[in-house]
Amino acid sequence: MERIVLLMAMSGEAEPLLETLELAEGNFGTSIVYPFRIFKGIFQGAELFLVTSGKDPHHQVDNVGTIPAALMCHLAIESFQPQLVVNAGTAGGIGGQGCTIGDVYLSAGELVFHDRRIPLPGFDDYGLGNYSSFDTVWIADRLGLKRGVVSTGDSLDMVPRDLEIITESGAIIKDMEAAAIAWVCNTLQVPMFAIKAITDLIDEPEATEEVFMKNLNLAARNLQVETKRVLELLIKSFHVGV
Amino acid sequence: MERIVLLMAMSGEAEPLLETLELAEGNFGTSIVYPFRIFKGIFQGAELFLVTSGKDPHHQVDNVGTIPAALMCHLAIESFQPQLVVNAGTAGGIGGQGCTIGDVYLSAGELVFHDRRIPLPGFDDYGLGNYSSFDTVWIADRLGLKRGVVSTGDSLDMVPRDLEIITESGAIIKDMEAAAIAWVCNTLQVPMFAIKAITDLIDEPEATEEVFMKNLNLAARNLQVETKRVLELLIKSFHVGV
Repeated sequence: MERIVLLMAMSGEAEPLLETLELAEGNFGTSIVYPFRIFKGIFQGAELFLVTSGKDPHHQVDNVGTIPAALMCHLAIESFQPQLVVNAGTAGGIGGQGCTIGDVYLSAGELVFHDRRIPLPGFDDYGLGNYSSFDTVWIADRLGLKRGVVSTGDSLDMVPRDLEIITESGAIIKDMEAAAIAWVCNTLQVPMFAIKAITDLIDEPEATEEVFMKNLNLAARNLQVETKRVLELLIKSFHVGV
Repeated sequence: MERIVLLMAMSGEAEPLLETLELAEGNFGTSIVYPFRIFKGIFQGAELFLVTSGKDPHHQVDNVGTIPAALMCHLAIESFQPQLVVNAGTAGGIGGQGCTIGDVYLSAGELVFHDRRIPLPGFDDYGLGNYSSFDTVWIADRLGLKRGVVSTGDSLDMVPRDLEIITESGAIIKDMEAAAIAWVCNTLQVPMFAIKAITDLIDEPEATEEVFMKNLNLAARNLQVETKRVLELLIKSFHVGV
């Protein structure tokens, strides 16, 4: 049976999907315990594992960002040996590149970082990342979804240099986990892609944090609908080809 | 026998220490393979495990930064179950707070981040981090070393907001791995501290990258001398108390 891992940073992003996929809480089966939460089930004849980052014990907020994302990706690959890893979540988008609030994007081409500036030969390119995304063209074509390069950083807001690097890289989606997950997946040779619903437009003047909170529910709903459609198509393609 | 893990991002930082500690290359004993390199040996009656980040396969540079650091820390704790994790490396320092090139500092109080800006309630403090360092006062007193709060970010250079956050947090040392390692160690309840040799002064106008390369050898030599002294004292304290 095929195995797919879904990695999601925020419980609020995951809740609509957890309801519709009818997954039950489980564990990694390792003795080492992180705050990550694991949900498992059978969906359309494939094994699904949805992992969320869990709560920080001191601040009671989701463990967002690249470090927990990389670790939960590692643990999920080690424990469940998936054929595919999908990073589903919300993100910012560049309005000037056609993004609108609530749009759902699939990662295209390469996943990059915008907050790893290391101006030494070789380290500069290492810092940017450039990790491969699973080819999502056929999925986007079948389902009418948009595609774009995703750039990752550990901040919700942006400093001017972040936006410059995002623009130079050709990215139109800004998130906080995808490239970290892509580093682990590329290193361990497991295909991965990201699916991201837009909460805010990073090239507009309104403060990200306010717009993010206002649009989180809409984006999470759209993310649930489209992630389910993508999973159905992927699993069908495993079984009968496309 | 006591077990101590040393985590080092750069092979150039680790080489002097590898020579003096006479460690032999080994592995984690897991089936999952990262580019990390593992060196093991007995030093003064304790088991030492020195892990470096290894090379990026595309750019042939060390896998510096928080994501590889967190993963190699996780794997080292899982495989070797150490009583203590030490993150040894080079770093920037604030000259205005008394740092000079070649100084060796021990982490003090808490380890923080300066590039995880998440202006939402609870997430703001989560982003800054504030992970506990092992108490290094007695080590610094015995060995005449300096101590300071270490702040971590994934860039070698700084944008103005980075320096503001570093200053607000009271940090005087700026590195690229320590707080990520501290997150893993705090989560898994393994004591950790950082030992950092200063390559550049982040509050001076000269570009970090040039000064860093110029002073890397000096800092790595001092790091080797002081890390060895710290290990000797720590291991003696395990055996006979302090």
